[in-house]
Amino acid sequence: MNLGVFLAGTGHHVASWRHPRAQKDGSMNFNYFKELAQTAEKGKFDLLFLADSLSINPKSHPNVMTRFEPFTILGALAQATSKIGLVATASTTYSEPFHIARQFASLDHLSAGRAGWNVVTSSIPDTAKNFSGTEHLEHSLRYERADEFVDVVQGLWDSWEEEAFVRNQEAGVFFDSSKYHELNHAGDYFQVRGPLNVERTPQGQPVIVQAGSSKDGMALAAKYAEIIFTAQNNKEAAQAFYADIKKQVQENGRKADDVKILPGIFPIIGATEEEANQKYQELQDLIQPEVGLSILSTALGGFDLSGYPLDGPLPEIDVEQSNAVKSRAQLIIDMAKRDELTIRQLYQYVAGSRGHHIFVGTPTQLADKLEEWFKDGACDGFNVMPPLLPEGLDQFVNDVVPILQERGLFRKEYQAPTLRGNLGIDEPLNRYTNGSDHES
Amino acid sequence: MNLGVFLAGTGHHVASWRHPRAQKDGSMNFNYFKELAQTAEKGKFDLLFLADSLSINPKSHPNVMTRFEPFTILGALAQATSKIGLVATASTTYSEPFHIARQFASLDHLSAGRAGWNVVTSSIPDTAKNFSGTEHLEHSLRYERADEFVDVVQGLWDSWEEEAFVRNQEAGVFFDSSKYHELNHAGDYFQVRGPLNVERTPQGQPVIVQAGSSKDGMALAAKYAEIIFTAQNNKEAAQAFYADIKKQVQENGRKADDVKILPGIFPIIGATEEEANQKYQELQDLIQPEVGLSILSTALGGFDLSGYPLDGPLPEIDVEQSNAVKSRAQLIIDMAKRDELTIRQLYQYVAGSRGHHIFVGTPTQLADKLEEWFKDGACDGFNVMPPLLPEGLDQFVNDVVPILQERGLFRKEYQAPTLRGNLGIDEPLNRYTNGSDHES
Repeated sequence: MNLGVFLAGTGHHVASWRHPRAQKDGSMNFNYFKELAQTAEKGKFDLLFLADSLSINPKSHPNVMTRFEPFTILGALAQATSKIGLVATASTTYSEPFHIARQFASLDHLSAGRAGWNVVTSSIPDTAKNFSGTEHLEHSLRYERADEFVDVVQGLWDSWEEEAFVRNQEAGVFFDSSKYHELNHAGDYFQVRGPLNVERTPQGQPVIVQAGSSKDGMALAAKYAEIIFTAQNNKEAAQAFYADIKKQVQENGRKADDVKILPGIFPIIGATEEEANQKYQELQDLIQPEVGLSILSTALGGFDLSGYPLDGPLPEIDVEQSNAVKSRAQLIIDMAKRDELTIRQLYQYVAGSRGHHIFVGTPTQLADKLEEWFKDGACDGFNVMPPLLPEGLDQFVNDVVPILQERGLFRKEYQAPTLRGNLGIDEPLNRYTNGSDHES
Repeated sequence: MNLGVFLAGTGHHVASWRHPRAQKDGSMNFNYFKELAQTAEKGKFDLLFLADSLSINPKSHPNVMTRFEPFTILGALAQATSKIGLVATASTTYSEPFHIARQFASLDHLSAGRAGWNVVTSSIPDTAKNFSGTEHLEHSLRYERADEFVDVVQGLWDSWEEEAFVRNQEAGVFFDSSKYHELNHAGDYFQVRGPLNVERTPQGQPVIVQAGSSKDGMALAAKYAEIIFTAQNNKEAAQAFYADIKKQVQENGRKADDVKILPGIFPIIGATEEEANQKYQELQDLIQPEVGLSILSTALGGFDLSGYPLDGPLPEIDVEQSNAVKSRAQLIIDMAKRDELTIRQLYQYVAGSRGHHIFVGTPTQLADKLEEWFKDGACDGFNVMPPLLPEGLDQFVNDVVPILQERGLFRKEYQAPTLRGNLGIDEPLNRYTNGSDHES
């Protein structure tokens, strides 16, 4: 099984920053991130993952309000670690393919082959206001742009074939011009000549990660993704998602095994079930109503809930009319109906776990659950989202990983020096190598 | 005196990569950069500087053809060093202020106050072809955009006042909303709401560096720059530039001392003059004619020299008609006339030193020259551009720095933990602090 850890400020629980054992300034404390990364590497995690945002909502989720810019901190973490994969979010909505191709290629060199790019589109209308009033693109257009963006980035990554740089000092030949390729891309959103000014990277190309679970998001994932992060609350839905994606992947002419599906898991671990439940309640009790409401409202595409009683039901909401991350919003609405939750119960649930799969129990119970999902075809592993850091990661590494290792479910040592190597995913062939017809 | 070191692949001499003592793959070898940075820190340099480019000219200067992306490598170097300033070029022509503000702010946090931004406009028409055919902006418009760009970035850096983040766990107050500021900038080139999602940085704001010596470039420098890099070939011209800039700085209501002017110096150091001359000739003899011509042509704004005899004079060139870095192109043309150089002699000179001040001699002679310029009001220090790395930097640190220290011209220990502190430049006051009227 493959394991990622999703690092976020004081932890994934929205009220984690208020917990007495939190590192209050965690979101901008590099030594703290360094220790977390080293703990995850000690636990033989495949990768650590940093989300990102290009704007602030001052009303919600204070522990990720400010944060390090991903490329600068991952450059730094590349020096503080030697085996773990380094995955960062970068948006296709407000950047240019040349910049993104270059930053991940550079990170792949600096980390000796451990870089991964979580491809996202920016769904928050406020972000447009930080980028010169760029019209906020409608959902399906954002995905059209993202598709072309990834295609261009991968094309730029192929600019130089392996061993293009001969550096023959005597002859004065720096590179082999037959291994140099201009991309000359001309599409609907981008025109990019190339070549990239970074050599082919240790992994051939950095790993592509995708996390959108909408129809458009799944199509993009099936075409490009090598890792998929997803929010799945029950095994049956996860199995259906898994089968669906693997099928789409094969329809794209790719091998099912070349995509690793890692649902998020939000584990609250205690020595006993009772202790775990207490820990969970301790965190839930720290959620402030205005913060919870604001997060719920954002998750529902900005729907204004302020006029509705907290202890009444969720009103009817038409997700299709909104610019929300539709798949996630629908999941929340469906759950509210199914479990007859009040707005307060719903915001506690959503704000607490952010829609991800909550687990509350002992290390052995958690290992049982992870094994069950893995063996029953619900996933290829998990993206672990500790509610409270560093404690939640320490517990996972010290108490859960050894059980998984004991059962033969998880590596005891890294198999390879690169992220691809540990995932067991092949290096992509350069499109220009061996007379392929991709040259444009 | 303040000293910077400009790190570039195998060295600043265009043929350095062909030298037997060069690190041939230096431009993309992180351990090599790490050692260079640590050597410069051992030499108590104020800063190391990395130039940048957003396109490749396959015909010129192979040792910087591929390179690390600046933010990723500076993030990494922030961990490999603890005192030296980390200055990177970032273009205002093909990025957005929010991204740049964020990356430098993040680097300033990761380095505990050592970040500097060399503000440039992109003058290479080919670069536009990597950014979706964006019309390549004419020289003065590029500077208009740059001016507004820097203004927005500095505004974003003021988004949060000192100690805005109170993180009161009991009261549930994460930040003091009176210290939170949206920028709401609406200008000709950019509309940016803010705030930045990075806390106020250890230096208050990262240091602004500028290197354009055209009229527009100098005006921008006088308004914003705290360090100025400049190409000056003789002391009198350097004195005139120094006096002119310091006057313009004061006309902008700033203190003359708040701007440090650091001309480039390209030192070829030998134990004897003869050894130094030999070393220089050794490098010059390695320049290939097609490389030299291409670099000269680029420096002259793309003027095609291929029809002219190599051993004849430079034809008449009208710099004003070109999109070149005008100040530098004029300097080259003036020198060719004054010294009656052939095209071959001119390309050897320009390709070798890239228009910067060449010094050839012993460590004592170099120290004398640096002292003379410094004492005679030609500069506040130097940006050292070793022709061949790592050798040129090792020699400067081992043989020249001790003489400067002995003479009381240069620090023996870092005075401060931040770049600003070592430069002796005050932290800027946040525009919103103490009821200033800058709030928009």
